[in-house]
Amino acid sequence: MRTLVELIAAKRDGEALTAPEIAELVAALVRGDLADYQMAAWLMAVYFRGLDDAETVALTDAMLRSGRVLDLSAVRGIKVDKHSTGGVGDKVSIALAPLVAACGVPVPMVSGRGLGHTGGTLDKLEAIPGFRTQMSADDFARVVGEVGCCMIGQTAEIAPADRRIYALRDVTATVECIPLIVASILSKKLAEGIDALVLDVKVGRGAFMKDLARARALAEALVRVGTRAGKRVTALLTAMEAPLGAAVGNAIETREALDLLAGGGPADLLECTMLLGAEMLVLGGVARGEADARGRLGEAIASGAAARVAERMIAAQGGDARVVADRARLEVAPVQLVVEAPRNGVVERADALAIGLAAVAMGAGRTRADQAVDHAVGITVEAKPGAAVTRGQPLARVYVRARDAAAEAIAGRVAAAFSIGEVCTTHPVLLLGRIDAHSTGAPG
Amino acid sequence: MRTLVELIAAKRDGEALTAPEIAELVAALVRGDLADYQMAAWLMAVYFRGLDDAETVALTDAMLRSGRVLDLSAVRGIKVDKHSTGGVGDKVSIALAPLVAACGVPVPMVSGRGLGHTGGTLDKLEAIPGFRTQMSADDFARVVGEVGCCMIGQTAEIAPADRRIYALRDVTATVECIPLIVASILSKKLAEGIDALVLDVKVGRGAFMKDLARARALAEALVRVGTRAGKRVTALLTAMEAPLGAAVGNAIETREALDLLAGGGPADLLECTMLLGAEMLVLGGVARGEADARGRLGEAIASGAAARVAERMIAAQGGDARVVADRARLEVAPVQLVVEAPRNGVVERADALAIGLAAVAMGAGRTRADQAVDHAVGITVEAKPGAAVTRGQPLARVYVRARDAAAEAIAGRVAAAFSIGEVCTTHPVLLLGRIDAHSTGAPG
Repeated sequence: MRTLVELIAAKRDGEALTAPEIAELVAALVRGDLADYQMAAWLMAVYFRGLDDAETVALTDAMLRSGRVLDLSAVRGIKVDKHSTGGVGDKVSIALAPLVAACGVPVPMVSGRGLGHTGGTLDKLEAIPGFRTQMSADDFARVVGEVGCCMIGQTAEIAPADRRIYALRDVTATVECIPLIVASILSKKLAEGIDALVLDVKVGRGAFMKDLARARALAEALVRVGTRAGKRVTALLTAMEAPLGAAVGNAIETREALDLLAGGGPADLLECTMLLGAEMLVLGGVARGEADARGRLGEAIASGAAARVAERMIAAQGGDARVVADRARLEVAPVQLVVEAPRNGVVERADALAIGLAAVAMGAGRTRADQAVDHAVGITVEAKPGAAVTRGQPLARVYVRARDAAAEAIAGRVAAAFSIGEVCTTHPVLLLGRIDAHSTGAPG
Repeated sequence: MRTLVELIAAKRDGEALTAPEIAELVAALVRGDLADYQMAAWLMAVYFRGLDDAETVALTDAMLRSGRVLDLSAVRGIKVDKHSTGGVGDKVSIALAPLVAACGVPVPMVSGRGLGHTGGTLDKLEAIPGFRTQMSADDFARVVGEVGCCMIGQTAEIAPADRRIYALRDVTATVECIPLIVASILSKKLAEGIDALVLDVKVGRGAFMKDLARARALAEALVRVGTRAGKRVTALLTAMEAPLGAAVGNAIETREALDLLAGGGPADLLECTMLLGAEMLVLGGVARGEADARGRLGEAIASGAAARVAERMIAAQGGDARVVADRARLEVAPVQLVVEAPRNGVVERADALAIGLAAVAMGAGRTRADQAVDHAVGITVEAKPGAAVTRGQPLARVYVRARDAAAEAIAGRVAAAFSIGEVCTTHPVLLLGRIDAHSTGAPG
């Protein structure tokens, strides 16, 4: 075995490392034999030289094995999770997990918190009074088995090497590196004990990946590496130019997700949920294809089965399940500032990044991982790109605790996120691409 | 000003940083605002993207300003130092500094210790009883002024950022990067308060640079950057395939250097010393050209003036100055093992790297910076490449404290460093190239 410094030099020189070498790098980091500055140098070398799929599988495996791998073998069925690379207004998981579970596919979901302009599922769920996102691995497995789904936060036991490496990448300009992103995402997801995974790779102004080519490269790498790691993996590329749905915030996003389970909700949010849910049902082996899956998903909403699963999951996680039927129980800040259209025309742009950052500025998100969020504040987009508006019509509403100078400043930022044109030149499209093991040439 | 992470990302993306940005990176490291892992990532980005000359000047300047810059303005004359990139048997400095000082050029010299297969001037000097290589900056300036030369070790005050960065490079596979090597060498040398610098860039098996093209690139970068930093700089490229001179060790190398000042010593060692000394005398403004300079250097040896300066320097630094006239006072290990020629022929190779590593293995050098060395042990090369030998004639002698299995093993390693051929195909050449500000196109 080469020394740790030789492994840094080998990657620097463009060599592929063996799986035992990558395992040793990660293990040495966890043991303290490889210093953070050595890992940082290796990560920068990886930024320049890349990792091939075999190395990325090895890194994923080493990171997931740095902690506990959840055992869901006692849960019957093909366990399927969904992961989104993060966007603005992306509350899909909250509706999707109960919906897919109601169709017979177990969904063990470990989610994250918001950081920067993107929100996090955990913050949104915690807007439900009493809801606990921390629970033991055993309780998690039990709830998945009994209810069909459970949504928790990453514990200290899951992939600690990933947390350590991600913290280093964040401060060493090595975040934007596809194999490192792939290993980080997959190590956490594979540690959940899943059999299959659907990935929602967001593309656009409000996403981590701003352009389609790079997003496609990430999606393909995720599918190839996940497949090599023995999982069934499909990825969708979906647009993130404007916020998904209407609500951006915590309580108001959870309200909107629960609206979906009651048969309502914005059309684009429903479509995104149906697209991802159909993939999960097919991977989970309960639907023969997209049409069959969409039929089952629609039925689960119409029958109230999905809402019943949501209630059981919320109750099992300590939350007030009455919010599913009575969404007004989710407290939203009492004061509304209306952002009005300055003239007649068509909404050309409702900039997800600008709106996401405005939400962070009002306290709905965080700029540092240790900040608390205000669950009650938020923004709703009342006129999405493509909508015709007349002067004075609401473009957005800003929900604040008091009408003050700070609130007016937020409303100004939200107003600036919109642009109104004469005619809409391009109709927004949600689904930009679909990648599965077959389309990447990965071994199925 | 961009954030520190943005500066890492900028270098990662191939941008040139401004001088204030580089100064801030180094200052932030010293202050503790830039973590070691962030500097390590930046160094690896530099490994891939390089630094242009302006950036290298800025890095040199920032590192030298991280500590004290010695003020030698009270010393009359153009202060000139010599730096070697390191080789085996390279004891040139010990003869050169007094020799050049005897010709009227002040030589303030800050040297290093041996590490790996290369020896260090400080270890060799400390073979002189009582010799102190640590002294205050004020005492150093006083000795340079009174004696004409002084040879000390790097103090904690000199370029602390370089020490910190070098330690990181050593364990992150970022040592072999020309702009970082240039900034490291020049920051320490410029902090000495010199006006001019002669560089001896060693090339070959026993050198840091194994091939001529890379050594030339380093020499050119050193001259360009040193010239841009306002110093008069010349570099020689010299061969390091076999040890320089005969002796490899500490006391025996100091003996050999002092032999030179007494008019003796091996021819290649004398030639290397004369080449470097001539450059120093020309840069120091006391000789009109190489021929004039060589005449002055020869005269300073023949007259005993150089030996008298050596005695005064040793005395001023607490050492026993009698060693200059009576070199047997330098204790050499009592037991000699003779390595004999296995057959008649011509020495083709006396591998400097193998002999240097054998010397380290017997305790003359160190593999870790915190190891002590044994000044008395060593090796002498009795037949250099090109020499005709008959079977049984000594190729080398190994000086050990006792004839034991370890000593026999060292002798075996030394024997293996030699190869004997039928005829010598190439005659060894010492001087491989010369670079000055004119030849690099640097602004004079």
